[in-house]
Amino acid sequence: MRIGELAERAGVSIATIKFYIREGLLPPASKKTGRTMAFYDQAYLERLQLVRSLREEHFLPLRVIRAVLAERGARPLDRRDREILGRVAPDFLSRLAATAGTHATRAELVAGTELSSEELAMLEELGLVGADAGDGERRYDADDRALIEALQALERAGVSRDRFPLEILGHHVELLGELSRREVRTFIHNAGDLEPTELAKLAERALALVGPILALVHRKLIQRALRAELAKEKPR
Amino acid sequence: MRIGELAERAGVSIATIKFYIREGLLPPASKKTGRTMAFYDQAYLERLQLVRSLREEHFLPLRVIRAVLAERGARPLDRRDREILGRVAPDFLSRLAATAGTHATRAELVAGTELSSEELAMLEELGLVGADAGDGERRYDADDRALIEALQALERAGVSRDRFPLEILGHHVELLGELSRREVRTFIHNAGDLEPTELAKLAERALALVGPILALVHRKLIQRALRAELAKEKPR
Repeated sequence: MRIGELAERAGVSIATIKFYIREGLLPPASKKTGRTMAFYDQAYLERLQLVRSLREEHFLPLRVIRAVLAERGARPLDRRDREILGRVAPDFLSRLAATAGTHATRAELVAGTELSSEELAMLEELGLVGADAGDGERRYDADDRALIEALQALERAGVSRDRFPLEILGHHVELLGELSRREVRTFIHNAGDLEPTELAKLAERALALVGPILALVHRKLIQRALRAELAKEKPR
Repeated sequence: MRIGELAERAGVSIATIKFYIREGLLPPASKKTGRTMAFYDQAYLERLQLVRSLREEHFLPLRVIRAVLAERGARPLDRRDREILGRVAPDFLSRLAATAGTHATRAELVAGTELSSEELAMLEELGLVGADAGDGERRYDADDRALIEALQALERAGVSRDRFPLEILGHHVELLGELSRREVRTFIHNAGDLEPTELAKLAERALALVGPILALVHRKLIQRALRAELAKEKPR
């Protein structure tokens, strides 16, 4: 498509597209057929829509958009990154499993909670609670118990299940899942030449310290989301 | 396009598409021109790709995908929801502002931290730290200080800034921003007939209690992301 159609379909001005190109957020054009004739394809439109959403909905500064675009998407890990992953990930995963402690059975887990069996099944289906022990039975650890307790604390504070249906956690799995993927890739990519055991230990410490950062960023963004909704209210 | 082309472009089988239609995750077809002739448009392809990613990348169960699809996207709040928002959000926002406490100036904030002025500027640009006091000056509260301290704790634990460049927070803003938007909409939508002040208090309690849930879900999903990357390693 020509730049005019591109602009219309993305809901931005032609000047904005040229600005993004100048800033290196978009390549010059999918296909250039002359000094003034340039064509843009579907993939180009999608990238433009993404840049627009990062800019206008998430208010990211240009240099952050550049960093986000670089890390985003399905670019596979390169050989060096794969090698680091292979040496670090198993160690890291077994460290986490070790600190998650005792492995309760389903009956033991349910006994200590007010969670219905159906609710537990939902958490299992979402992959948030319980791991297959290899014998077809699930085992539950301290993280599983902590999550269930956190959900119960919400309910006890008055946020009943009809206000917070567990299906909502699907959004968390989708969006924090994508975040986790990008974090794993970034961490591996910036691993440097630390020895594998040191790297696994570092990842373990980092994971524990990222929790409070998530909570604080979320707190800010809830306020931003509310202000954005309120702003839509106002007459122009 | 015909169903064959649709399947190919989405990278799924025709049987999978028919299964999604049967399960109500996709409408029957964009356009039906006969008993056996059906056509599918670009929007249909995009929805199919989304369902596929929720299913195959995020492993969401079908009933959760249904709930996620219902809450997702840019469907504007309806009149009743807007009315609730208008009565609750300002109260909620001023409660949060009140508990975030004292308002430091930039000089006071920087004095107590090891953060460089450039790093602080990045956090401000991301909208994560500092609010415009209305006089062109920014003011900083307890949440801002807590976030800066959490970032410093990460650095002190050995996760240096070249391993965790602050630009990474762009991913957090994008993905937790989208999560926040959906949470606000769900909360408003399920508000029921609680009195506005009660609803604002409930939202405040819920926000505090959702923090640990985010951290625990993130912890699970980091492990899932690593296992998924490791599985790609294995020869078939």
